[in-house]
Amino acid sequence: MNKFDFGIVGLGVMGRNLLLNIASHNFAAAGLDLDTEKVNSLQQEADANHTIEATTDVKHFVELIQQPRAIMLLVPAGKPVDSAIASLLPHLDKGDIIIDGGNTYFTDTDRRFLELSEKGIHFFGMGISGGEKGARFGPAMMPGGDQKAYERLRPIFEAIAAKVDGEPCVEYLGNGSAGNYVKMVHNGIEYGIMQLISEIYDLMKRGYNLDDETIQKTFAEWNQTDDLRSYLIEITGNILKQKDEDGTQLINKISDWARSKGTGKWTSQNAMDLQVPVPTIDAAVNMRDMSKTKPERIEAAKKLVWNASETNVDQSEAISALKSALYFSIVVTYAQGLAQLHTASKEYNYGLNLETVAKIWRGGCIIRATILEDFRKAYVTKADLPNLLLDGGIASKLTENQAGMRAVIQFAIQKGLPVSGLMNSLSYFDAYRSANLPTNLIQAQRDYFGAHTYERIDKEGVFHTQWAE
Amino acid sequence: MNKFDFGIVGLGVMGRNLLLNIASHNFAAAGLDLDTEKVNSLQQEADANHTIEATTDVKHFVELIQQPRAIMLLVPAGKPVDSAIASLLPHLDKGDIIIDGGNTYFTDTDRRFLELSEKGIHFFGMGISGGEKGARFGPAMMPGGDQKAYERLRPIFEAIAAKVDGEPCVEYLGNGSAGNYVKMVHNGIEYGIMQLISEIYDLMKRGYNLDDETIQKTFAEWNQTDDLRSYLIEITGNILKQKDEDGTQLINKISDWARSKGTGKWTSQNAMDLQVPVPTIDAAVNMRDMSKTKPERIEAAKKLVWNASETNVDQSEAISALKSALYFSIVVTYAQGLAQLHTASKEYNYGLNLETVAKIWRGGCIIRATILEDFRKAYVTKADLPNLLLDGGIASKLTENQAGMRAVIQFAIQKGLPVSGLMNSLSYFDAYRSANLPTNLIQAQRDYFGAHTYERIDKEGVFHTQWAE
Repeated sequence: MNKFDFGIVGLGVMGRNLLLNIASHNFAAAGLDLDTEKVNSLQQEADANHTIEATTDVKHFVELIQQPRAIMLLVPAGKPVDSAIASLLPHLDKGDIIIDGGNTYFTDTDRRFLELSEKGIHFFGMGISGGEKGARFGPAMMPGGDQKAYERLRPIFEAIAAKVDGEPCVEYLGNGSAGNYVKMVHNGIEYGIMQLISEIYDLMKRGYNLDDETIQKTFAEWNQTDDLRSYLIEITGNILKQKDEDGTQLINKISDWARSKGTGKWTSQNAMDLQVPVPTIDAAVNMRDMSKTKPERIEAAKKLVWNASETNVDQSEAISALKSALYFSIVVTYAQGLAQLHTASKEYNYGLNLETVAKIWRGGCIIRATILEDFRKAYVTKADLPNLLLDGGIASKLTENQAGMRAVIQFAIQKGLPVSGLMNSLSYFDAYRSANLPTNLIQAQRDYFGAHTYERIDKEGVFHTQWAE
Repeated sequence: MNKFDFGIVGLGVMGRNLLLNIASHNFAAAGLDLDTEKVNSLQQEADANHTIEATTDVKHFVELIQQPRAIMLLVPAGKPVDSAIASLLPHLDKGDIIIDGGNTYFTDTDRRFLELSEKGIHFFGMGISGGEKGARFGPAMMPGGDQKAYERLRPIFEAIAAKVDGEPCVEYLGNGSAGNYVKMVHNGIEYGIMQLISEIYDLMKRGYNLDDETIQKTFAEWNQTDDLRSYLIEITGNILKQKDEDGTQLINKISDWARSKGTGKWTSQNAMDLQVPVPTIDAAVNMRDMSKTKPERIEAAKKLVWNASETNVDQSEAISALKSALYFSIVVTYAQGLAQLHTASKEYNYGLNLETVAKIWRGGCIIRATILEDFRKAYVTKADLPNLLLDGGIASKLTENQAGMRAVIQFAIQKGLPVSGLMNSLSYFDAYRSANLPTNLIQAQRDYFGAHTYERIDKEGVFHTQWAE
């Protein structure tokens, strides 16, 4: 009893793999789940090199862990987190630490922190990314909140985290719910990049009529370039290699009904509260929702017809333009998410250092990519950079790639293919580089119909016009 | 005492004008405001033909109104509504009616309904649109909730509402917070159309280099066509005629810093909760937020340069394409908003009749337009139409206009001008008419990194693949 270093509640894919990761680094790890099968399955992994005990008994679980205890929850966000905390509480002692490792909405973390600190329990949220493989062999972790509690567990987290150039992909990020917030935006960016890759894939297939092998090879080759090397491009290449039982590409058998768990939606909704535009992420959320209108789309396909003109495009030129478009739009998506973090940090007093965020995202997580190092450098140059697009190096790389980006979208429009992720990245770019937007007309309209007043460019103050009819 | 037909709390622009409208229709109207100036100013409007009494004394105000009383709140949404209700309550009797005429978030109406029904007070929300002129001479009104209470006041509301073909632009819409919800989506559509008009204006000016007079005349002429005749096009033509003191166009002196009151944002955020894409409305919300980054945009304009190629476009062809684009994108915006209402009605059990919604939006409100009659007919043909784009007549009109729509966006891309509203309308259209979307790749990616499983097109069930690396 009392000899285990760490406890995990919830032995699903993430909890089980994180626990095995911890045990592989010579920490004794206890696991709790109500599901006997999951408990037994984990128990079988215990051996001379892995000190593991799994149980369905909460009291026994808590007693296994040495005081002050460290217990991480890996249960679905929402009520299951509250239930898990409630079941643990009667057995805990003051000074124990609970870590929420799930995709919890950040305001829930703020609430739970207050509730638990009254009881003398340390509580902090830590977003974890890396999927099942990452959890097992090295995730990125985004802790925030109670810094002293985090420091006590830092050796464990640094041991199990992914490493890039020897640096662990975990670091204390900031106050309060900073960890959950950063993970939420990470997931929003992930939605955006996945949507962009799917549009590029669609253009290759339905637009430029590339054959399956060429498409697969292109993603694999792109993953060898500094601009696009990343986990999501890598797995896309692998996915397109996967054969179904009949020897054809499995991807063509998969339904286009895309599910989601809500973190992308939260990112978009909260960005609107903060008045920070993240249109590529919005587009990704929208397209998952659009995917659910299948019966309507089948009917609409018959009624809304566009006779696309034939196009003759050189294949290597097409691939080069698509590469520019994908690079351009991915960078703009990161820029949107990081701009959201910039504003959120001020709004919620997180005290985020965006260099640290870029640093820990370089490895382990789903959006890891070689270009994160460029972003990190941008924040080294200017720590309070409000938007990546203002960094000189990134600005000039985007400028170089914009001709391909524009050509690809124009081609998609001509072909009648939907590219809302690409379009929203370009219009974000073109709006951001507009010193003057036509929103002056919107101000005039608001004053016309609602007497809402407006500002002027030539003098201070607030003005209202008696508009002639 | 006790002789007044109706009371209004809040004598700002909307409250004052609605009260005058009511008094002009031979109903005796009492007004309450804490601001003595507003009270005195309204009192001066009382004459032989207008029975009006305005006061700062809540007890006196309530006593003026005949029982069972009808009192409408026109105060800012949120806490001011709760405060107004709290100040009235001690003086009210069972059976009295309170109507919230503001832009209240719909869940607040549901809450207040429950709180007030416990006290025997009838309460319902009624969205009102029309701006200051509309309130004075005929707004559109969107009541929902307590139908019996509404019926008692129907003669007053029908008298003061705008009329189209003799039909008043007010009708009971549905259960619970239906009235506030419909008004919220009305405002979301309003945001979308305002954004689209501003983009078309920008393209005329910065893209096609039309002179100010031609731009003004074009909007005025468009307002004479069945496709575009509408309040927002009409006032745009008027705004562009307005001269500043120095004789130049006032519009060029107005700041591009666009404000908003939140109803567009609510529409977008709630659409995401309902999993209904409304990307043109999202774009409108985003561009108002983008307008606030002025100092960043001035810096970005220097760093993110695009050398647009010279274009030689025939002016009348350009105007014709712009007209197609504006018509196309406005219809798609209504389609998004009405699809949101279709889903919301099921989700919240509103029991909305979308024909009625289209009918009352034809007049009085900010988004009134001749094309609303087309939409109304679409719902007459098929009451449960999930999306306007599936109506045969609307589908063929959109199909006719899509060449111009596509050409305009391609031109904007070449010119480097931001047209996110137009782009999101087109990509919505192209996604909706895609029987197959590339979201199958997103499902494969989710299964690859998170074992989230996927569906197949050739067999039932849920599948997971052990993806090769």
